[in-house]
Amino acid sequence: MEERFSEYLRKVASSIWEAQHNHPFVRGIGDGTLELERFKYWVRQDYLFLIDYARVLAMASARAPDLPAMRRFAELARSTLEVEMDLHRAYAAEFGISPEELEREQKSPTTQAYTDFLKCTAALGSFEELAAALLPCMWGFCEIGQRLASGPRPRDPRYAKWIDMYSSKEFAELAEWCKGLVDQLGREATAQERQRMEEAFLVSSRYEYLFWEAAYRMETWPV
Amino acid sequence: MEERFSEYLRKVASSIWEAQHNHPFVRGIGDGTLELERFKYWVRQDYLFLIDYARVLAMASARAPDLPAMRRFAELARSTLEVEMDLHRAYAAEFGISPEELEREQKSPTTQAYTDFLKCTAALGSFEELAAALLPCMWGFCEIGQRLASGPRPRDPRYAKWIDMYSSKEFAELAEWCKGLVDQLGREATAQERQRMEEAFLVSSRYEYLFWEAAYRMETWPV
Amino acid sequence: MEERFSEYLRKVASSIWEAQHNHPFVRGIGDGTLELERFKYWVRQDYLFLIDYARVLAMASARAPDLPAMRRFAELARSTLEVEMDLHRAYAAEFGISPEELEREQKSPTTQAYTDFLKCTAALGSFEELAAALLPCMWGFCEIGQRLASGPRPRDPRYAKWIDMYSSKEFAELAEWCKGLVDQLGREATAQERQRMEEAFLVSSRYEYLFWEAAYRMETWPV
Amino acid sequence: MEERFSEYLRKVASSIWEAQHNHPFVRGIGDGTLELERFKYWVRQDYLFLIDYARVLAMASARAPDLPAMRRFAELARSTLEVEMDLHRAYAAEFGISPEELEREQKSPTTQAYTDFLKCTAALGSFEELAAALLPCMWGFCEIGQRLASGPRPRDPRYAKWIDMYSSKEFAELAEWCKGLVDQLGREATAQERQRMEEAFLVSSRYEYLFWEAAYRMETWPV
Repeated sequence: MEERFSEYLRKVASSIWEAQHNHPFVRGIGDGTLELERFKYWVRQDYLFLIDYARVLAMASARAPDLPAMRRFAELARSTLEVEMDLHRAYAAEFGISPEELEREQKSPTTQAYTDFLKCTAALGSFEELAAALLPCMWGFCEIGQRLASGPRPRDPRYAKWIDMYSSKEFAELAEWCKGLVDQLGREATAQERQRMEEAFLVSSRYEYLFWEAAYRMETWPV
Repeated sequence: MEERFSEYLRKVASSIWEAQHNHPFVRGIGDGTLELERFKYWVRQDYLFLIDYARVLAMASARAPDLPAMRRFAELARSTLEVEMDLHRAYAAEFGISPEELEREQKSPTTQAYTDFLKCTAALGSFEELAAALLPCMWGFCEIGQRLASGPRPRDPRYAKWIDMYSSKEFAELAEWCKGLVDQLGREATAQERQRMEEAFLVSSRYEYLFWEAAYRMETWPV
Repeated sequence: MEERFSEYLRKVASSIWEAQHNHPFVRGIGDGTLELERFKYWVRQDYLFLIDYARVLAMASARAPDLPAMRRFAELARSTLEVEMDLHRAYAAEFGISPEELEREQKSPTTQAYTDFLKCTAALGSFEELAAALLPCMWGFCEIGQRLASGPRPRDPRYAKWIDMYSSKEFAELAEWCKGLVDQLGREATAQERQRMEEAFLVSSRYEYLFWEAAYRMETWPV
Repeated sequence: MEERFSEYLRKVASSIWEAQHNHPFVRGIGDGTLELERFKYWVRQDYLFLIDYARVLAMASARAPDLPAMRRFAELARSTLEVEMDLHRAYAAEFGISPEELEREQKSPTTQAYTDFLKCTAALGSFEELAAALLPCMWGFCEIGQRLASGPRPRDPRYAKWIDMYSSKEFAELAEWCKGLVDQLGREATAQERQRMEEAFLVSSRYEYLFWEAAYRMETWPV
């Protein structure tokens, strides 16, 4: 039986993904040792990420080659904007972060770079590259959520809630759908296109890692 | 009190819009004299239009400058793909047009030109131009639906249903929202940008007229 | 020996291309019977076409996958803007068309539709589709120029000059380069991508025909 | 007399630009203390930057609102691809960097982030934002070249050559042209648009600084 293309990509990016699992930010959510200030930084930056993520999902809908993919991405863009962002605002409130504080937040270097990469791929890359660039976010959070869920539950209910969200069945279904999309596109692609998909998957995987790192270091622009 | 920019645009395009109201295709729906073959042509071409229309709405969501507009356009893209198109397929079935026939349909010259104009504006124009380019479709169908609804009811229940759809409260609300968006964008725009919005509004208005004309003539490519 | 993909496309579009060769506008240039008013219409509309054509060439440079193609398209965009358009203005002057008249000209329906198609393909299609969409213009003018050059020379020196331009060695080299690019892209593409290239080639071929037709009928917007 | 918008932007970004002038990489070119390995890193990464820079210039040509700007950007894209890159390859050879080594080079995080920002702005931003995003590169190199040229000449003729290039009259003319473009666009823009231009100018200014910093640290991806 042939290997799924998504599994091949996961292997190529294996060291990056393991570095994510071992990152003190991710581990710190699991064992509850993560300082609240670092996590709040993540919550604020993730809000900015979500807005551009919704833009990228909308562009994926616009550029999808068939109706089922158009539909799924349009629904994802809508639910990100109407459901996810409300949940995010409510979750932020549990940390004392007001909607105004979220609106005032400026992109950190890593958030700027990652969102520019995704938007740039959505605007100028192929749909294949775009799907591959989106996978590390959907799949990575799912895998991290599930690994953390299999360990002891953190004492802070807010960290526990975070783990619940990303280890949920709905999130797993979403990741599986995106894997299936990448599998199908990879199967039908030329070797050259698969190479570009691999490159996009790797760049996004690196940014997923760097997003934890930026939150952990509470990264700011040096100038 | 200042004139709404949308009303100004409506005035500039007045002769085009009146030509729509007086077009034998539109009148023929109202008085029931429109030959079924011509209407079926419209149903098939409108299906192709809807697919690209959904793409354009998704791009509008991606390019909108604020969250409320992003949200509304994402919801419109989703509902076009998940609700409108299902309704359209069901409506087509009432005319004996199968889903397969819809999928096989090729764009007529006017459908090609109008959808290319909208997609081109969505990809390369400003958000202001895009909003202005989308308005003649949303508002025009609403106005036509309401004018026809104020006349005698056509005997064919399928034509009556068509009038009901576009004269509905929901459709009026959508048109009003889009007018409000264009008003706001026009108010904040430079004179140059307003000029480009006017141009986009006029081009789309012409294509709205030509779309009726193409269906009435059952237009095909000459070569 | 395998057939060149460009030659395959030419065959598929054969009836459209023959219709071009037989069009009274094209024939009228060759035998000198074309009314000046019709030709002047073409000169004015072609000026508007050239501006958007330069935009499309620039976008092709931006989206090309390798340096040689980037370079060639950038050079084509530059020479269109710096050389072609000056030549065009000078040529227009021979017909008494002033630069101001060129600037005032509005796009006819066919010019609007063709340029929107090209820009839309440049912005949202693949590079393969874009190359295929550009080929009918480069190759078609070359073929028409050469066929007309092989016949008797028209008495009006301005028509003769037109034939000289498009039957020139430089123009033939350009067409051959674009054919080679499409051959290469077609060779490396999936069947699905080749299908999309064929569709783009056909649409542009139809617009090439319609561009003659529009000039012959001195087409205007009906509303 | 009103302040030029470009000068206003320069003031807002003043601390970032001064940090560039004071950066050990920039100073090290001037006083000749910069280690060759760091400079060679810059030469290799700048090659990758130039390729995407040419794409962005081509997109600027495609999106420019008038013929003079279309022309200038098309000429810049062409000369970047045909002249600059050849010069760059020849210059790299003086450091023993072969064309193959240039082709093998992978983007560092900062090169990836800066080029994605520029391409993203070119594809999805307004032309105003794009012009503002391009200015810090053209103007910054000019200012740095001129400041270094006013100091003692570095002993290494290759560093001296670098200073000659960026302090040249041609480069100053280019920077002045881009400033004039931004002045004009800023003058005609709404306050909102000027705000977006300022933001784009600041982000590019930060990336200009970070590009020196990346070369100085010989930055690599952490995973």
